[in-house]
Amino acid sequence: MSFSGVLVPVATPFHPDLSPDKAAFLGLCQKLLDQGAGGLAVFGTTSEANSLGLAEKRDLLDYLVDNGIPPEKLMPGTGTCALPDTIAATSHAVQRGCGGVLLLPPFYYKGVSDDGLFDAIAKTIEGVDSPNLRVYLYHIPPVAQVPFSLDLVGRLKDAFPQTVVGLKDSGGDWAHTEALLTAYPDLQIFPGSEVFLLQALRLGGAGCITATANVNLPMIRAVFENWQGPDADEKQAAATAVRQAVQNAGPLVPVIKSLLAHWTGQVDWSNVRPPLTTAQPEVGAQLAGNLAQLGVVYPS
Amino acid sequence: MSFSGVLVPVATPFHPDLSPDKAAFLGLCQKLLDQGAGGLAVFGTTSEANSLGLAEKRDLLDYLVDNGIPPEKLMPGTGTCALPDTIAATSHAVQRGCGGVLLLPPFYYKGVSDDGLFDAIAKTIEGVDSPNLRVYLYHIPPVAQVPFSLDLVGRLKDAFPQTVVGLKDSGGDWAHTEALLTAYPDLQIFPGSEVFLLQALRLGGAGCITATANVNLPMIRAVFENWQGPDADEKQAAATAVRQAVQNAGPLVPVIKSLLAHWTGQVDWSNVRPPLTTAQPEVGAQLAGNLAQLGVVYPS
Repeated sequence: MSFSGVLVPVATPFHPDLSPDKAAFLGLCQKLLDQGAGGLAVFGTTSEANSLGLAEKRDLLDYLVDNGIPPEKLMPGTGTCALPDTIAATSHAVQRGCGGVLLLPPFYYKGVSDDGLFDAIAKTIEGVDSPNLRVYLYHIPPVAQVPFSLDLVGRLKDAFPQTVVGLKDSGGDWAHTEALLTAYPDLQIFPGSEVFLLQALRLGGAGCITATANVNLPMIRAVFENWQGPDADEKQAAATAVRQAVQNAGPLVPVIKSLLAHWTGQVDWSNVRPPLTTAQPEVGAQLAGNLAQLGVVYPS
Repeated sequence: MSFSGVLVPVATPFHPDLSPDKAAFLGLCQKLLDQGAGGLAVFGTTSEANSLGLAEKRDLLDYLVDNGIPPEKLMPGTGTCALPDTIAATSHAVQRGCGGVLLLPPFYYKGVSDDGLFDAIAKTIEGVDSPNLRVYLYHIPPVAQVPFSLDLVGRLKDAFPQTVVGLKDSGGDWAHTEALLTAYPDLQIFPGSEVFLLQALRLGGAGCITATANVNLPMIRAVFENWQGPDADEKQAAATAVRQAVQNAGPLVPVIKSLLAHWTGQVDWSNVRPPLTTAQPEVGAQLAGNLAQLGVVYPS
């Protein structure tokens, strides 16, 4: 049981009343698997996971598995601020056969110690108490503010070698990703952006988990599939250029959803839950034009 | 329906297995009301509210009300990152007759706009849809990182004048508290620390909501009760000295719980949930000694 390749933190579509659109969610998940996603990291930051209620996430996960998404391809985010809620969500993911979970640290209190964070993850693992649990630590200090330090990652890996098997590094700091790859070659390390994909693969990285894979999976996969080829740097540059174009259009989640709305013709795709705010209608259309010039079109 | 005086973000006691100790929680709530607390802001930051599961908080609130705590004295924290969970917790508090709720903004995403935060609070109020709802905004940027700006507070107050009636300012920045008191004299403003209590009362503040009221309510109340008296500054200085002594002992929540453990002889009081870490056993004893010299003893 392991993940590799390009994993997608799948965007969560909402109806106009902001309830989740299960059918559209399932549709995007299926499309991404058809496009060769290495896995679906549903309920990530791009998925507005923390804007979803606990029961909503449970229902959505059930819906995906009940409707044919192979659970071994799923790496749902299950970390909350509270141990009982994290244990419940993680246990449910394991019971449904998910290949792993992407685990945020408890992120309300700031400036907490590595000992406290170790204890939080340890008690989660002990609370779930399953040999089938595979934990991918979710390091995203720009948002969660609470980091998994290099030392803490090592402590968790050593204490739970069968369970703590990987990490997503969304810190945006290549030096930290490089340090992780060097220190822990036995962990499956995924940068949180494709701009670091080729560098990571050359140091033994497992792939990447990236927001823009919602809209540019083929080009990012091309880097992964050809990383040892003569044109690997060229393919990386092409993927990076697309990433830049998406980032330049505004805040990542509303922009990606606006693009999906434009591409699919389903305007509801642009809906986000507060505290995020929906992009202006022209954002998706304009970005689609820019991306077409970079060779990215909506895969039908 | 309004609050004033010294409100307590009641510490939440845990059994050794870290499940909530309902009886001890009820006991502390009763004791604090007996001591003249202006209200109980249960499920605040000091209460480790965000380390409690949604169902646990619901059960604990039910337990308090079912066992004689007057609900109009309760101002539970009900804000989470997710709209459905916030609406459910807030609706439950209203249904149980709570005098108000202390509402954190959604705190996962950082750098979000005031428009997005306005929408989050507006949709919460509209989702609860009750004339009995009284919202106290919880501004605690050092922890939540997501602020209620001066402008946003005004917008919310203007849009929901019957509902958004107050604010707790735990920013630790007197200039911000002063600006709030000056701009919005019709709001019930509570500094999040007693060190600002007298200053706030002189500008029309409603009282304070402070962690240390768990252990020093009588002395803090003395400031509130005598703020127009000749010895108001003296009483404030005495309360501030105690606050300093508590803060000097270490991180506030473990220290306060360690002191309660020492005073009550119930060692379990020192338990905290991760990511917080339990204070060393001697911390409470040492602090008790220091506080005794400042005139603070456990009220029996």
